[in-house]
Amino acid sequence: MITISLDAMGGDFGPTVAIPGAARALERHPDIRFAIYGIEAECLPILNKYPALKAKSDFHPAEVAISMEEKPSQALRRGRYKSSMWKAIEAVKLKEADVAVSAGNTGALMAMALFCLRTMANIERPALAGIWPTLKGESIVLDVGATIGADAQQLVDFALMGGAMARALFELKRPTVGLLNVGTEEVKGQEEVKEAGRILRESNFESIQYLGFVEGDDLGKGTVDVVVSEGFTGNIALKAAEGTARQLATYLRMAMSRTLLAKIGYLFAKSAFDMLRDKMDPRKVNGAVFLGLNGIVIKSHGGTDAEGFAAAVEVGYDMARNKLNEKIEHDLKNFHSRRLPAKVDADDDGV
Amino acid sequence: MITISLDAMGGDFGPTVAIPGAARALERHPDIRFAIYGIEAECLPILNKYPALKAKSDFHPAEVAISMEEKPSQALRRGRYKSSMWKAIEAVKLKEADVAVSAGNTGALMAMALFCLRTMANIERPALAGIWPTLKGESIVLDVGATIGADAQQLVDFALMGGAMARALFELKRPTVGLLNVGTEEVKGQEEVKEAGRILRESNFESIQYLGFVEGDDLGKGTVDVVVSEGFTGNIALKAAEGTARQLATYLRMAMSRTLLAKIGYLFAKSAFDMLRDKMDPRKVNGAVFLGLNGIVIKSHGGTDAEGFAAAVEVGYDMARNKLNEKIEHDLKNFHSRRLPAKVDADDDGV
Repeated sequence: MITISLDAMGGDFGPTVAIPGAARALERHPDIRFAIYGIEAECLPILNKYPALKAKSDFHPAEVAISMEEKPSQALRRGRYKSSMWKAIEAVKLKEADVAVSAGNTGALMAMALFCLRTMANIERPALAGIWPTLKGESIVLDVGATIGADAQQLVDFALMGGAMARALFELKRPTVGLLNVGTEEVKGQEEVKEAGRILRESNFESIQYLGFVEGDDLGKGTVDVVVSEGFTGNIALKAAEGTARQLATYLRMAMSRTLLAKIGYLFAKSAFDMLRDKMDPRKVNGAVFLGLNGIVIKSHGGTDAEGFAAAVEVGYDMARNKLNEKIEHDLKNFHSRRLPAKVDADDDGV
Repeated sequence: MITISLDAMGGDFGPTVAIPGAARALERHPDIRFAIYGIEAECLPILNKYPALKAKSDFHPAEVAISMEEKPSQALRRGRYKSSMWKAIEAVKLKEADVAVSAGNTGALMAMALFCLRTMANIERPALAGIWPTLKGESIVLDVGATIGADAQQLVDFALMGGAMARALFELKRPTVGLLNVGTEEVKGQEEVKEAGRILRESNFESIQYLGFVEGDDLGKGTVDVVVSEGFTGNIALKAAEGTARQLATYLRMAMSRTLLAKIGYLFAKSAFDMLRDKMDPRKVNGAVFLGLNGIVIKSHGGTDAEGFAAAVEVGYDMARNKLNEKIEHDLKNFHSRRLPAKVDADDDGV
C-alpha cells in the first residue's frame, strides 16, 4: 500500500481538479491510500461525489490555502504549519505518507518542502526533475528551476539523483546521463560543467553511464536518459521547448482550418491527428519531482486538468513504490564517502 | 550598391551551396556586388554556371579552407591571413566590403572575426544574434552562443545592440526588449540579470522600450522584439526549440503516413501542409549576426541549402543597407558616455 498526501488546494483549480485527479489515479492503482489536505468547505462536497476515493482517503482540514501568486517568503510566513501545502509535505516528514503531491506554485512548494523536509546529507540544494517527451520515449531533465547556479559537485549530485529517478521511473538498470552544454569548444566559462564531466568520467559510477556533453537539440532526440543542467538554463530550455510545441500546434490548427480542402483532409486524417495530439499531450508528462530532500514531493502543473493531475499522482506512486529516496541515498553515499574531504571547503550556504 | 564578401568554402557544402545561394540573393537584390573568397579550383567551375553572379563578382583565390570540425585556435593558427574565411572578414575591415557572410563553423568564425575586426569601443565581448520565428512574426534573440556568461553591463549592451538590429531588420522605431529569466521570484542568483533590468528600467533609452523579464515560453509567443540572454542559456534555448520543432515535424510525418485514410487526408490538405512547412522552414530565418565588432559578420547555418544561404546573404544586405553598425555605435555611445566611471572596475578580461 502506498500512501499519498495531497495538497488539494494547489493549482489554478484547487480541489475541483485535485480530487477528481486522485480518483482517476486510484482507479488505475487500487493500492493507493490518500491523505487529503484542504479547506473543508471546498473539499468535502467534491470528495462526496467520489465514494471510492472517499473510502480510501483520510481528509484533514487545513486553515490556509497558498495562492498561485504568493511569493515563497510570504507563503512560508502565512502558511507554515497550517496550510494544506505544508501539511501535505509534513505528512511525508512524519512518515504518515510516502509522497506528497501538489499543483501549488513552484516557489512556495520548493520553500516549504525545503524548510519542512531539509536536504539529504551532503546535498546543498534540491533539484526539480521534469519528464521530457522525446523521439525515443521519455527522458529526465534536471534541474528545471529549483535553484539557480550549480557547482561541479552539485551537477554530479544531480546526475546521480536523476539516475536514481530514471531507474525508479523507467525501470532501467544503468541509465545514460549527459551534461547540457554548448557545442562550441574552447569557449570561456562554464568551468563547472567541464569539471563535472571530468568527475563523472573518472568516477565511472555503477548506477549511471555517463555519455558526455549533450546540446539543446539532444533533449528532443532522447540522446540520453538523464540530462543534467543547472536550474536557470534548465528552466528556460524547458519553457522554450513547451513554447515551441504550442507555437507549432497553433500553426497546425491555423493551416487545417484555412481552406475547405484542408478541413476535408483533416476529417480524413482525424485519427492521425488524434494520435498526434496524444503524442503531444502535455498532461501525459505532468509531474516533476523535487530531488535531494528527506522525502518525495511531486509538483504538478498548476493549469492541468484531472487527467494531468492523475499523471502527477502516478509519478509519485512510481517514485514511492520503487523506493526513489533509498536509491538516491545509496548512490550519493557511495559518491560522497569517496571524496569527503572536498566537502570541507564547500563554498555555498544553500538557498 | 552593397558589397558582400563571401566565404565560399564554409558550411557542409562549401561553394556548391554558397555560390548558388549568392546568385539567388542577387536575383532579388540587383544592387549587391560580391567579393567571393575560396579555393579557385573548387569555386570557378561553379561560378561559371552563374554568369549574372559572375558579372557582379570579384573572385579572390584563397589557399586554405577552414573545416567544420576545426577548433577555433587551430583555425586561427592554420587559416589566419590566408583562409577564405579570414579574407572575407578582412575585406570588411579594409572597407572593401560592407558585410561578410560565412557558413563556416561558429567557433572559428567568431575567433577570426574577433581577431580581425576587434570589438567596438566599450564592448568587451561580441554577441551572436539569431532571428527567432514567433507567433507574431520574428524576434531577435541574443546572445545565442558567442560567449558564455555576461555581467549586467554586457547584458545592457546586448539589449542596445539587439535593439539596433531590430530597427535595421524589422524597420521598427523603438523595438521592445525583454531579459530572459526564470519565473520563480526570490530565487538566489542571476543577480546580473536583475541588475541589468534595473539599469534598463532606469535608463529609459530612446532607442529601445524595455518591458521587463520574459520567460522561455515568451520566445515563441513573440512577447518582445528583442530577447536578451547570456550565451550559454541562449544557445541551449535556441537548440532546444529547434529540436522540439524537428521532433514535432517527425511526429506529424509519422501520423500522416500511418493509415490509408491519413494519407488521403494529407493529399486533400496538401496546400495546408505546404503552408505549414513554409511557416516552419528553418531556411527562412537563417542568418545570425555577430554584434559588437567593428564590422558586420553574418553566420549562416552550416547545413543549409542555396535558398537558406541566400536568406543569410539577405540578412547581411539588410544590415548593411540600414547601417546597423552606425546605429549600434550611436546607441552605445549614448549609454557608455553616461556611465563611463563604471567601466573602471570592469571585472572581466574578455574572451
